[in-house]
Amino acid sequence: MLGLLRAHGPLNRGELSRRCGLSRTTLHDTLSGLLATGAVISAMPDEAPRGRGRPAEKLALNPTVGQAIGIDFARRAVHVAAVGVTYEIVGSAGEAHAPGLPWADRVALAERLVRRLVGGGSWQRVLKGVGVGVVGPVAGARTGTLSGVGALLGERFGGPVLLDNNTRLAALAESTWGAATGDQDALYLRLSYGVGGGVVAGGVLHRGADGVSGEIGHIPVDPGGRPCECGGRGCLETVASIRAVLDAYRARGGRGDDLPALAAAVEAGDPIALGLLRNVGTEIGRVLAALSNAIGPRVIVIGGELAEVGAPLLGPVQEALDAGAVPISRHRLTLRRAALGDVAGALGGVALALGESPLLSRYPAAEPEPGPADSSAGRYGEAAARPRLALTPLS
Amino acid sequence: MLGLLRAHGPLNRGELSRRCGLSRTTLHDTLSGLLATGAVISAMPDEAPRGRGRPAEKLALNPTVGQAIGIDFARRAVHVAAVGVTYEIVGSAGEAHAPGLPWADRVALAERLVRRLVGGGSWQRVLKGVGVGVVGPVAGARTGTLSGVGALLGERFGGPVLLDNNTRLAALAESTWGAATGDQDALYLRLSYGVGGGVVAGGVLHRGADGVSGEIGHIPVDPGGRPCECGGRGCLETVASIRAVLDAYRARGGRGDDLPALAAAVEAGDPIALGLLRNVGTEIGRVLAALSNAIGPRVIVIGGELAEVGAPLLGPVQEALDAGAVPISRHRLTLRRAALGDVAGALGGVALALGESPLLSRYPAAEPEPGPADSSAGRYGEAAARPRLALTPLS
Repeated sequence: MLGLLRAHGPLNRGELSRRCGLSRTTLHDTLSGLLATGAVISAMPDEAPRGRGRPAEKLALNPTVGQAIGIDFARRAVHVAAVGVTYEIVGSAGEAHAPGLPWADRVALAERLVRRLVGGGSWQRVLKGVGVGVVGPVAGARTGTLSGVGALLGERFGGPVLLDNNTRLAALAESTWGAATGDQDALYLRLSYGVGGGVVAGGVLHRGADGVSGEIGHIPVDPGGRPCECGGRGCLETVASIRAVLDAYRARGGRGDDLPALAAAVEAGDPIALGLLRNVGTEIGRVLAALSNAIGPRVIVIGGELAEVGAPLLGPVQEALDAGAVPISRHRLTLRRAALGDVAGALGGVALALGESPLLSRYPAAEPEPGPADSSAGRYGEAAARPRLALTPLS
Repeated sequence: MLGLLRAHGPLNRGELSRRCGLSRTTLHDTLSGLLATGAVISAMPDEAPRGRGRPAEKLALNPTVGQAIGIDFARRAVHVAAVGVTYEIVGSAGEAHAPGLPWADRVALAERLVRRLVGGGSWQRVLKGVGVGVVGPVAGARTGTLSGVGALLGERFGGPVLLDNNTRLAALAESTWGAATGDQDALYLRLSYGVGGGVVAGGVLHRGADGVSGEIGHIPVDPGGRPCECGGRGCLETVASIRAVLDAYRARGGRGDDLPALAAAVEAGDPIALGLLRNVGTEIGRVLAALSNAIGPRVIVIGGELAEVGAPLLGPVQEALDAGAVPISRHRLTLRRAALGDVAGALGGVALALGESPLLSRYPAAEPEPGPADSSAGRYGEAAARPRLALTPLS
């Protein structure tokens, strides 16, 4: 019924009946339910048809009722987004928090943000799903793999919860609504407090064995480099994360404790900041060249707060990419800034929850599990039986 | 008809007629054509059914008649393989040649090898296609992209010719019949006179934009290193190809001009050879770790003649891979030796020509173009209109 109204716009009961083939009674019952949720509203046309009596009531979707919710639990912030039954974005919101905030508080913050966005109550009755991005590899794009957090989210939101890596979800969003829309082969890199990415290969979001893919931040670039929180050494993240760049800036005598200070120094032509960003950009470009030669993207999208410093970083990225990419790729490979900002991960969660993107066609089929208290971690087979996501324990 | 006989085994005319639903006349005509080609043979059962008269003639596939041919034009050899109408491998053959042999001679060599394998004449009438591997990126897996060579092959073999990168075809074969059979996510690396690879992502062979993927040999590992024939500098191929390893071996004072000499030195415990292979293996392992973190394979297959030196090379590859792969992958990622030897590329050509592997489900649909003199390079759209393969001109 919702699909018909989405495809055809407002219809009267007769038109709906013809198109859906339901009996008069079933149609009446279904419509009553939908009208009660507020997802479907009844409207009288402004003008009555000529030469007729009472104008026919039109039934339409209520664009303010959310049908899918995306949540991105980033390292230092929660972002949420929602789409309505019309599949248009209702809105998005986000709030920073201290690193290491307990999971219960992060979930509560997400809930506050979502309720602010889509209002209370009835939207839950038409909720298709909640797509949730978390840091680290996720084995299955389904509830149950992160049993504690998944169950808690299911209880709070009352809909099926699908979990995935948040940077891969950002790649999904950039390929759905952002800088790589329509590109069959794309590589996404996010430069934030963590460094990660996502791969779209042959028109589909690539998940990788055990949900490991897009871990670009953990590609070693300096075997003798600094220890990384993944347990490795000299990973790209130890060079190109916001924290790493700010630390290196201060170590070289730069003054500034945060990204706006660094951006101001760059703006003022500070040679320490510019030289540093050149080195960092070169390392990033080398990694992207290596991956491009192996994977063959048409477009590389760079997002995350660090990318906002622009040309002083992205120029050297482009130079190193050109130097390292096979000749045939050099003039065909485009480097683009991300288009969706810090809400990309949450928007990717929405796309995951809707589950209708061709980009997800090789993802494990989502089997929606209705709502509350669904903490049956074992029911999704092998992947679910062995939770694989390294996360702060639920507090 | 061939499909029915492949699926059900020998059938008599009545059974065939029931299963295919063709009229008696059409069935008779079709069968006569197939019997004339030799693809279908007629056989009388050994025993007559009890209580009946003349035993019913059974029609069966002739396992010696080839239906798909694969050719791998490697740098210094031509390899061919064929499958019969039963989809069983008829056989394979190969012959080394001097580097730089003109294309006309390479095609003639391929033709000799194929004719030796599948005999002369009638097999061409049931030929489904010829899958051809060449060095370098190939934009479309179809005839016409390499118009000269494609047309020449079409003339000689009289079937539709599908072209692709030969190392990607080797990856396809290893995923179909070899070391990665059944793995949904696999990375293949070939260490030969060239260094290249292939990516199987989510159960499909990945092609990449403009047919560029798997160019692992052109990933720079040493920005100040030796010039590579791709135009770059310090590519993995300048370190890990057979030529590069032999050159480095002599430069360090080692004695030996070819791979058997190096293998003998390794066998004898020559510290120069062992130290060199350790360095080369470490470089290879670092590249594989970087790619694994981004792509997430379950299995990495290493083939090519150089891999045959075994543990002195592959041990250090494994160590560097373990050191650089994200922790979650380390115990789940398997390094395997390739299983199909130097005929892998040709076998991949067979799989491409058959076109029925799920691994090819996201490849551009092959539109078989019947045989001879089909040199219409422009008809396959944009990719075909601009041939993209850098190859020695047809002489």
